[in-house]
Amino acid sequence: MEEIKNKNKISELRQDLVTGDWVVIATGRAKRPEDFANIAKEEEKKEDEKDCLFCFPEKTRQEKDVLMYQNGEGQWSLRVFPNKYPAFVRSRMPKHFEEGPYFGMDGTGYHEIIVTRDHEKSLALLDNLQVLEVLDAYQERYIDLMNKKSVNFIEIFHNHGREAGASIAHPHSQLVAIPVISPYIQGELNGAENYYRSTKECVYCVMNEWECETQKRVIFENKECVAYCPFSSRAAFEVWVVPKKHKPYFERITASEKVAVSEALKFSLNKIYQALNNPAYNFYIHTAPCDGKDYPHYHWHIEILPRTAAWAGFELSTGIEISTIQPEIAAEYLRNI
Amino acid sequence: MEEIKNKNKISELRQDLVTGDWVVIATGRAKRPEDFANIAKEEEKKEDEKDCLFCFPEKTRQEKDVLMYQNGEGQWSLRVFPNKYPAFVRSRMPKHFEEGPYFGMDGTGYHEIIVTRDHEKSLALLDNLQVLEVLDAYQERYIDLMNKKSVNFIEIFHNHGREAGASIAHPHSQLVAIPVISPYIQGELNGAENYYRSTKECVYCVMNEWECETQKRVIFENKECVAYCPFSSRAAFEVWVVPKKHKPYFERITASEKVAVSEALKFSLNKIYQALNNPAYNFYIHTAPCDGKDYPHYHWHIEILPRTAAWAGFELSTGIEISTIQPEIAAEYLRNI
Repeated sequence: MEEIKNKNKISELRQDLVTGDWVVIATGRAKRPEDFANIAKEEEKKEDEKDCLFCFPEKTRQEKDVLMYQNGEGQWSLRVFPNKYPAFVRSRMPKHFEEGPYFGMDGTGYHEIIVTRDHEKSLALLDNLQVLEVLDAYQERYIDLMNKKSVNFIEIFHNHGREAGASIAHPHSQLVAIPVISPYIQGELNGAENYYRSTKECVYCVMNEWECETQKRVIFENKECVAYCPFSSRAAFEVWVVPKKHKPYFERITASEKVAVSEALKFSLNKIYQALNNPAYNFYIHTAPCDGKDYPHYHWHIEILPRTAAWAGFELSTGIEISTIQPEIAAEYLRNI
Repeated sequence: MEEIKNKNKISELRQDLVTGDWVVIATGRAKRPEDFANIAKEEEKKEDEKDCLFCFPEKTRQEKDVLMYQNGEGQWSLRVFPNKYPAFVRSRMPKHFEEGPYFGMDGTGYHEIIVTRDHEKSLALLDNLQVLEVLDAYQERYIDLMNKKSVNFIEIFHNHGREAGASIAHPHSQLVAIPVISPYIQGELNGAENYYRSTKECVYCVMNEWECETQKRVIFENKECVAYCPFSSRAAFEVWVVPKKHKPYFERITASEKVAVSEALKFSLNKIYQALNNPAYNFYIHTAPCDGKDYPHYHWHIEILPRTAAWAGFELSTGIEISTIQPEIAAEYLRNI
């Protein structure tokens, strides 16, 4: 058992192979896997279905849906509409401004909400076809917004539980389309390009191959996709869902890849749901920017971050995150639950 | 009033002049300054003084102090000892390891606790001389550890309140000395160097001058130091304490600079204490690495981050932080309280 092998080690520094950043795996402070259950417990108290803004968007002076899927009986199964309290708003082009040495621009962009019908069931409990529909919507909205003039970067993310930032309990994802590229994606783009320059290989493909070969950290694998706890996990029980085929751009996902990814995403969320007793979590898509440039060495994927730790002064000042379980142990626990 | 000027703007993207990263100032979601009080409220319930590990470190099989200051009556006023549950431990040199494509090393380093005597009074409520003593201890411990073989980088930080990660209520700071340079510092080093290359000026000196000239975001100024809410604040009511003299290395702070900085730090923490009703917060020193290289273009400083916001999916996936008050308004409120 690896826990025993590492008994007299207080911690390890592990390097993120993509960005070169470091994380701390603090095995000396380690808990047993089962001790993480309830740490990030989602609050039980949920809004009543009758009062839910997302069950009845038509009642809430919500802007018109930009997308709606219906089931066989003509009922809506998924809908997408603009966020009523957006962080970014539509405008042709963002106005720039200067103040002395500083620069800024208007918060121009799109901020949409993607809602599945069931008030109670999170993605972990939906069936594979329903999760597939969510991916369909992600892709459809992405493609619609990616060529807008003011949009250079699109982030799609999902907050589950109040502790993860979900202010409305009804399961929903969000899409934000903005004029600037995020620092995290920029770091991954740079890392992937540097790695390619020195090895002629995609760093994500290299990791996929190693993970599938060793199976140490893999929790799910099918023909087109693998889910594993990353070597340099930012948080306990972090899981990445990575397509096997090298592809920088999420929006170019094929129908069969979408089936494979939805299976892996659903499986991973369900394992985390069981292992940590319905914890709060975030997941999000990391994909190449849509700014018209080529990013041939990037490799899109999904990252799932259970809220098993809080950022304190060390993390906020350094950007070095501390996780208290080895990803190998976390993966073994998720596999076996 | 600037609130009015920005009324029809939902948000702004502001660029960090040092790193080039972006933050969102979401004025459309803005609260009035007084609405932030109690958001990051520190829990009232504190451990009893009698049971406090830090009031009576000698009772707790704590390792011997590495530093102790005494007052005129021979009582200790400040002590520093190794963390009983360290994230990093002493060792001559960290052992490196590889696993397939990945790299890592042992978590070698030093992890110390810096404790002021008073069980109740946080730094915001201590007098200037006591805060000066804390800075003395920071410097003394920094100088002792900076030349250790395995140490290339030292982070000194302070967590106040459970929400900010303080697991023990008794006021204390922490020092972590490690073999790797943090990504946040690396980003600032690169940014400061790039700025110098293109302008022949220090980016922090440029900001200091602009802030002192306009006074828009300044909350405190003395001869050797200025405290202001940064243009691209990561969080509502963030404050930076920046020495006026260009100096990359905190450990080279002079006696009179220490007096000036302790005054500014104490003043800023006290204003935040009043404005936000004793909120949880973190502060930390950003200084050049101690890896033997020169960083002539860096400029050490202190950053204070009240816990006025939580990272949700957007922040975790992008690294772009959203603040819901303009730093100009926050500074005005802090000045006038």
